Amino acid sequence: MAKQGKSSKLWGGRFSAEMADIALDFSESIAADSRMAAEDIWGSEAHALMLAKCGIISRDDLKAILTELEKAREDLQAGKLPLRRELEDIHMNVEVYVRQGAGPEMGGKLHTARSRNDQVVTDCRMHLRTRLLDIMEAVAALQKALLQRARGNERTVMPGYTHTQHAQPISVAFWLSSYVSMLARDQDRLWGAFQRTNRCPLGAAALAGTSFPTDRAYVAKLLGFDGVVEHALDAVGSRDFVAEALAALCILMSNLSRLAEEFVLFSTYEYGLLEIHDSLASGSSIMPQKKNPCIAELSRARAGLVYGRLMEILTLLKALPSGYNRDLQQDKPPLWQALDESEMTIRALEAMVRTVKFNTGRMRELVGKNFATATELANFLVANRGLPFRTCHEIVGGLVAQLIAEGKTLDDHRRVQEILRRHGQELSLDEIEAVCDPQACLVRQVSLGSTGPDSVTALLASLKAVHAEALKQARSARRRIERARERTAKLVKEALAL
Amino acid sequence: MAKQGKSSKLWGGRFSAEMADIALDFSESIAADSRMAAEDIWGSEAHALMLAKCGIISRDDLKAILTELEKAREDLQAGKLPLRRELEDIHMNVEVYVRQGAGPEMGGKLHTARSRNDQVVTDCRMHLRTRLLDIMEAVAALQKALLQRARGNERTVMPGYTHTQHAQPISVAFWLSSYVSMLARDQDRLWGAFQRTNRCPLGAAALAGTSFPTDRAYVAKLLGFDGVVEHALDAVGSRDFVAEALAALCILMSNLSRLAEEFVLFSTYEYGLLEIHDSLASGSSIMPQKKNPCIAELSRARAGLVYGRLMEILTLLKALPSGYNRDLQQDKPPLWQALDESEMTIRALEAMVRTVKFNTGRMRELVGKNFATATELANFLVANRGLPFRTCHEIVGGLVAQLIAEGKTLDDHRRVQEILRRHGQELSLDEIEAVCDPQACLVRQVSLGSTGPDSVTALLASLKAVHAEALKQARSARRRIERARERTAKLVKEALAL
Amino acid sequence: MAKQGKSSKLWGGRFSAEMADIALDFSESIAADSRMAAEDIWGSEAHALMLAKCGIISRDDLKAILTELEKAREDLQAGKLPLRRELEDIHMNVEVYVRQGAGPEMGGKLHTARSRNDQVVTDCRMHLRTRLLDIMEAVAALQKALLQRARGNERTVMPGYTHTQHAQPISVAFWLSSYVSMLARDQDRLWGAFQRTNRCPLGAAALAGTSFPTDRAYVAKLLGFDGVVEHALDAVGSRDFVAEALAALCILMSNLSRLAEEFVLFSTYEYGLLEIHDSLASGSSIMPQKKNPCIAELSRARAGLVYGRLMEILTLLKALPSGYNRDLQQDKPPLWQALDESEMTIRALEAMVRTVKFNTGRMRELVGKNFATATELANFLVANRGLPFRTCHEIVGGLVAQLIAEGKTLDDHRRVQEILRRHGQELSLDEIEAVCDPQACLVRQVSLGSTGPDSVTALLASLKAVHAEALKQARSARRRIERARERTAKLVKEALAL
Amino acid sequence: MAKQGKSSKLWGGRFSAEMADIALDFSESIAADSRMAAEDIWGSEAHALMLAKCGIISRDDLKAILTELEKAREDLQAGKLPLRRELEDIHMNVEVYVRQGAGPEMGGKLHTARSRNDQVVTDCRMHLRTRLLDIMEAVAALQKALLQRARGNERTVMPGYTHTQHAQPISVAFWLSSYVSMLARDQDRLWGAFQRTNRCPLGAAALAGTSFPTDRAYVAKLLGFDGVVEHALDAVGSRDFVAEALAALCILMSNLSRLAEEFVLFSTYEYGLLEIHDSLASGSSIMPQKKNPCIAELSRARAGLVYGRLMEILTLLKALPSGYNRDLQQDKPPLWQALDESEMTIRALEAMVRTVKFNTGRMRELVGKNFATATELANFLVANRGLPFRTCHEIVGGLVAQLIAEGKTLDDHRRVQEILRRHGQELSLDEIEAVCDPQACLVRQVSLGSTGPDSVTALLASLKAVHAEALKQARSARRRIERARERTAKLVKEALAL
Repeated sequence: MAKQGKSSKLWGGRFSAEMADIALDFSESIAADSRMAAEDIWGSEAHALMLAKCGIISRDDLKAILTELEKAREDLQAGKLPLRRELEDIHMNVEVYVRQGAGPEMGGKLHTARSRNDQVVTDCRMHLRTRLLDIMEAVAALQKALLQRARGNERTVMPGYTHTQHAQPISVAFWLSSYVSMLARDQDRLWGAFQRTNRCPLGAAALAGTSFPTDRAYVAKLLGFDGVVEHALDAVGSRDFVAEALAALCILMSNLSRLAEEFVLFSTYEYGLLEIHDSLASGSSIMPQKKNPCIAELSRARAGLVYGRLMEILTLLKALPSGYNRDLQQDKPPLWQALDESEMTIRALEAMVRTVKFNTGRMRELVGKNFATATELANFLVANRGLPFRTCHEIVGGLVAQLIAEGKTLDDHRRVQEILRRHGQELSLDEIEAVCDPQACLVRQVSLGSTGPDSVTALLASLKAVHAEALKQARSARRRIERARERTAKLVKEALAL
Repeated sequence: MAKQGKSSKLWGGRFSAEMADIALDFSESIAADSRMAAEDIWGSEAHALMLAKCGIISRDDLKAILTELEKAREDLQAGKLPLRRELEDIHMNVEVYVRQGAGPEMGGKLHTARSRNDQVVTDCRMHLRTRLLDIMEAVAALQKALLQRARGNERTVMPGYTHTQHAQPISVAFWLSSYVSMLARDQDRLWGAFQRTNRCPLGAAALAGTSFPTDRAYVAKLLGFDGVVEHALDAVGSRDFVAEALAALCILMSNLSRLAEEFVLFSTYEYGLLEIHDSLASGSSIMPQKKNPCIAELSRARAGLVYGRLMEILTLLKALPSGYNRDLQQDKPPLWQALDESEMTIRALEAMVRTVKFNTGRMRELVGKNFATATELANFLVANRGLPFRTCHEIVGGLVAQLIAEGKTLDDHRRVQEILRRHGQELSLDEIEAVCDPQACLVRQVSLGSTGPDSVTALLASLKAVHAEALKQARSARRRIERARERTAKLVKEALAL
Repeated sequence: MAKQGKSSKLWGGRFSAEMADIALDFSESIAADSRMAAEDIWGSEAHALMLAKCGIISRDDLKAILTELEKAREDLQAGKLPLRRELEDIHMNVEVYVRQGAGPEMGGKLHTARSRNDQVVTDCRMHLRTRLLDIMEAVAALQKALLQRARGNERTVMPGYTHTQHAQPISVAFWLSSYVSMLARDQDRLWGAFQRTNRCPLGAAALAGTSFPTDRAYVAKLLGFDGVVEHALDAVGSRDFVAEALAALCILMSNLSRLAEEFVLFSTYEYGLLEIHDSLASGSSIMPQKKNPCIAELSRARAGLVYGRLMEILTLLKALPSGYNRDLQQDKPPLWQALDESEMTIRALEAMVRTVKFNTGRMRELVGKNFATATELANFLVANRGLPFRTCHEIVGGLVAQLIAEGKTLDDHRRVQEILRRHGQELSLDEIEAVCDPQACLVRQVSLGSTGPDSVTALLASLKAVHAEALKQARSARRRIERARERTAKLVKEALAL
Repeated sequence: MAKQGKSSKLWGGRFSAEMADIALDFSESIAADSRMAAEDIWGSEAHALMLAKCGIISRDDLKAILTELEKAREDLQAGKLPLRRELEDIHMNVEVYVRQGAGPEMGGKLHTARSRNDQVVTDCRMHLRTRLLDIMEAVAALQKALLQRARGNERTVMPGYTHTQHAQPISVAFWLSSYVSMLARDQDRLWGAFQRTNRCPLGAAALAGTSFPTDRAYVAKLLGFDGVVEHALDAVGSRDFVAEALAALCILMSNLSRLAEEFVLFSTYEYGLLEIHDSLASGSSIMPQKKNPCIAELSRARAGLVYGRLMEILTLLKALPSGYNRDLQQDKPPLWQALDESEMTIRALEAMVRTVKFNTGRMRELVGKNFATATELANFLVANRGLPFRTCHEIVGGLVAQLIAEGKTLDDHRRVQEILRRHGQELSLDEIEAVCDPQACLVRQVSLGSTGPDSVTALLASLKAVHAEALKQARSARRRIERARERTAKLVKEALAL
């Protein structure tokens, strides 16, 4: 009989003392691992099926192991799979479950040719890949909401801003669709992260592979991966896929924080461009008149949370020797938090976009008040008076300064005419009206991707196609994973039926 | 009768729709707030006592309010204070508790002259100040463990490293005490953070103070604060005290990650300078021989977690308009996490320091093998042969290169003599032995703060004093807070007895 | 004669190959070091004076060394001190200067009992301490500008915001002074950083002190330090003082980014609360009407730069073994950049505060338009009708909802009266006017630190005192450093005169 | 004549005061812009060619403009293009150059239908795309060096580590190639960043496009872009491509910091696995025996620099309203610094890999000393004695504990035999030798991606192919850009010849 060490752990042979309480508190990962229980069981099934296929364990062993794993799955679904903290992690919990049901031998056999080092990163990749698809679908839903609100607003004029100052008239559809365009690149990055995540490290064992004649490609296929992470040392020791997913989320959240900021800004009394739905705002316990854009504010703040989680992982990885180090255990809590909070932010903003009310009257009013068509006037002088642009810029700049001094706007056509005349430019009142009217100005924009209604109609069409493509990609990836799950289930059923 | 809005919230008057589920999910803060329940109740008691003292509420009102608050405290201590998620935060939960017990009027009166804006930051400061004292006491305990292990090891020689390469012989006491010295500055920073935290914002109300004739200094005193944050707008809208606490923790964790790194390094087979206790290590599920320094690795990795939380808060604060914004609600989760994880790291490292076994034989062996006393030889030539240091540096550098080429060390005194002779320097074998012996070399270091045993004895004494001073500071601050708590309790009792 | 290695470096004895070009490019630090040339020379003078005082070098040696160091200082002041990249750093450049003038022996003697490890951190602390005082003086100047603009504006009413929504009327003086209050804590943190910076590591040598009987306290005093960093290993290997300075700057910059954000926001056409001076704005090359708040935007963005530099240092320190490691060389570039950019941001904002024009008419207009006095109305009902606050909150909330629906404001006193009557509350028109007038509302705020003019007058007085105190602290620290400089110069002169 | 404003700027029409000195200091970007001078000129040429092609300017105008742009290019190449700080940025400098040569009209005409907002981001993308290709080629060179050093070392045994503790024997080729594998994913990410960078925003104008009938696709093609960023508002206001490039560099640097760390560790006296070439190390000014791994240390530290730059950009982007804001100007300095420092780090590590000397004797010695083949012994018992793995793990764990207690290793075959016998396992001495010999153990590893020589040979082949593919991608992208440059040059020549 093997002499039992003083430790009750599965690795206790060489140890002469139990783990201290503080060490256990400090090192257990059950809370973060529990999310991956289904993945751990699926992974164990696939591994066992492969071991039997390769003749490493017998068909009877396989049956005994799978019987327990199926029971564990049922317990998990029923919410009664025991997760004991003192067993450190999900892998040990599942293995002990098998041992208790089928005898210690079977637990041991299941662990042949693998290690917790490759198991944990396999589970993590399996869970992450699904969460990335969740995020992609949430982003697609937000894009859809933006596109739906854009449609029909191709001629709804509002001030376009640069430096938070009025620049030129744009349409509401143009403004909203700019976020669809930004988010399309986020989808690309998420998809890139998915592709580098969805590769199988299982079978790398502790760091160096194994002397058993395993079939890693078979396991990868059963688990719905697109291939293996071939190099064993790289497979167990690398977490760049975690950092990449977090980086993609950070950039996404930076984009969303800009949308949130504009909702906060545009819903102020001063701007008044839009009104957030009451169901997405909150009041004050002391000031009865308040309606606060709390969801937009919290969305904006969530960027910090996700940034912080990326910084956590990058710090953790800095100067870590290669291969598995226990530091890597801390990759999951920040990852899960960032995924959860990002998804909730996307969904909250989607609800906000769906229900926001645009104050088109206020938009129209503002766009006429602050010289937003001055550029058009300069362009008109270029095109019709043959002056160089810089000269026209100066003329119109002087005109604006004069009108501001007089408390007037470009709507005062007669005064505009007089001042331009003093700069040597003669325009008819009709010309001035045609040039300075924001709506007319909007329509005149014709360049590719511009705010002109025809351009925007084209933009919406192309963005819709891009949005649909990413969604399709995510959905078909999800289906491939589901089919792999079904295939494994079928093989398990067959093995149990023998 | 007040017409009730469609919202069931306490601020619902002007709202026409209930908060959406996603908004509630996204905006509730009960989980992070629940830690501050005791502080919220204490704060409410002090506020109520002040309102009565200033004649803003009657003595009867006070009695009714305090009766409910005392009940709430008892429920909290018994673990049965209801915390309803749909009431958004801890403040509303406590207020609703009072309303249910004493009638809606009393809830309303309690909320006179304050706002959730000043309440939440008061609770946060009260909880944080205690946690900062916890951290200071934990750091002091770690310093104490380091000092205890240092004592008696003033002459235990080990290699001193720079660039992770052997530099000069140092003592174990010198090495360990360097961390005590670093941690002393962390204590200073934590104390600075405590001082800027322990000031009372209550009474600032929503942003502008109140028209009620309140007595803010009285409330501050009852709550054990060292003073008030006078400016109301600053009081409710600033979170620099949170960022400062996190920054102090980050710097502390960077220091601790260095200690953890040295434990990892020094416990490798290759170094073998020390052995981590079995109770603070773990094994491998696949490799039977492994003993992994998991607690040291996890301590090292925790630095990333705390860094990330600071980055979260700094990002959140960036470009936020002044005054209260809902973004600020997200200050607490990162703060609590960073405090908890920092404290656990300190305590884990304290356990490791207390139980680590030093392999003094291996230390002595290593220090002699790799020319660690070369500098001493150069210094000897300066002092006894009158050569400039640079010349001696070159001579000894050449000697080392020659010995390495021959596979020899400075212990081969005869060979050292021969090579030095070729450089024109004649030393007796006795001189060489005296100069190159690591132990003798250690003893010769005499400058202030050096590794020489006398210097180290003085260092240990001064570090012990500094350590005790910080601990005393923390403990007496804690006592002041406790006394304030007792004073409030006494006043409450008196008010209830009327 | 010492056999010369193939390396031309001062440390080349044991090396058989010259440093590769890429290694030299990668490792030289002349650009970052050149700022510390004056400090390096001063440090060398003090070290030499101490060596002579302690009898480690002769008076003649001292004279020879000081002669060259004085020449080096003159060359530096004349902008012609040669800084050769291949000499790696400032220390080697100064030492080689001495060797070339006074012979290699003197260079060597000067380097007795010290190392580049303690030299570099001494120079860095000396330069940083002065830059921290620069920052403190710049912050004080910004505070002064804010206080000056506040004074006289204690009754200038403007909307006070929470959640970027109108909350209650506040005064311009109250708004501006909130930043003075925030900055006062930044001054405290900068001063804490100064105190932990201004301690002398020189004499710690490479890591373990020295066998020469040096006098570290004497050197510290000559260099204007407040004391020594006693523990040699801590002295050369710690950079927490760098991280602390950066953390203090980060928090400061987060505060400044909020001020910058409010300048951007309040200068929009929509808000129109203030106008940034033309000299601190810029135009558009294409849109003639634009006036962009570029300085405010760039100030806001600079927060990112400083945050990034802190993250750089914290990452660098993570898991670094104790003692000096070459990684530490990279502490200076981020530190210098953060100091420079922070100072420029402070000065730019000071200019903006000094020259900004407040549109008090627009402020008054806005404050009346959006129910900012609703809280006062509720408080009035509490105080005069004996209703609980929550009930009044609901009544006024309903009133606001009704008025918004009708497109009216609280200025429509008759309508307010009617609606309140329907809620069972009878108020005279005079009462309504008195309660709802923003100016009257402002004056009614009486609590400590509130926006009421008397409170603000008191606030301005106490903030002015706090501001003056910090400035005095910084200036007297600067004078102490200057006096130390003069003392050293006098001793140098005396030594040269012998 | 246009009335000139008081400002001398090209946008000065509406301004009444010159920009203040501090504003100019604070806002100029010449230093960071100067890198993009060639791109700015090329962009201007393409824009002018398009304007003429679309009939917006005449052929004569085109000729006049191109004449000056060609001169500017020549001046630039000769290092004498004037870059005046007071002209704020590179675009204004080039335009003023054109104005001075061809008259103000031509400068103005060149600026038709574009803005600095789209110009700057075009230049930035053009420069960044080339730098990303530089980085990819540098990474490929590092991979090549690693592969070259791996080849021939497939059977060179060394300890494989997990938790920095001996785990199992691996080969040097396996260790080195793990980094090639990690870097392959970095190449993927860099290529993804390249693809999202190499799209043309020019023609988006200030934010909304233009009313001129431009041909944006034509400009994009002339400039070697793979397409346009269609949405004008997105084109000028988004910097996610900058954040993505920095994120890719961060992850790359985290990988490189791990390689650097292993060089530092493995070159210690204690490990002694390898020796860094003297040309990539440095000495100590005080300790003659020191050889410090400075280049590895600095490489490790550079990760912090790059992390910090990503955090800078993410902070900057947080909550920025959409469209162009001046904050965005600060995107370039961190980007250029991160690219430069990353490239230098890669090249320094390549030099280190090329020249490092492996101490294969020490490797072989270490691998036998610390039970690295214990897992193999357990596996042997599984495979040959039919025991479950967990039982074997316990047996071998006990054996190891016993041997450590006795100061013996697995090389003491007879003692191993005795102890195993006591656990009921009988092995012949030949069996023990075969199982416990590290070399034999290495050879037995057969799973895909394992450290067995055949697996590694296959790994090296597949990694070489992947490496070559990425390099080919980068080179062909570079050629496409070069061909676009030549095409533009040809068109310019033709236009000038008319």
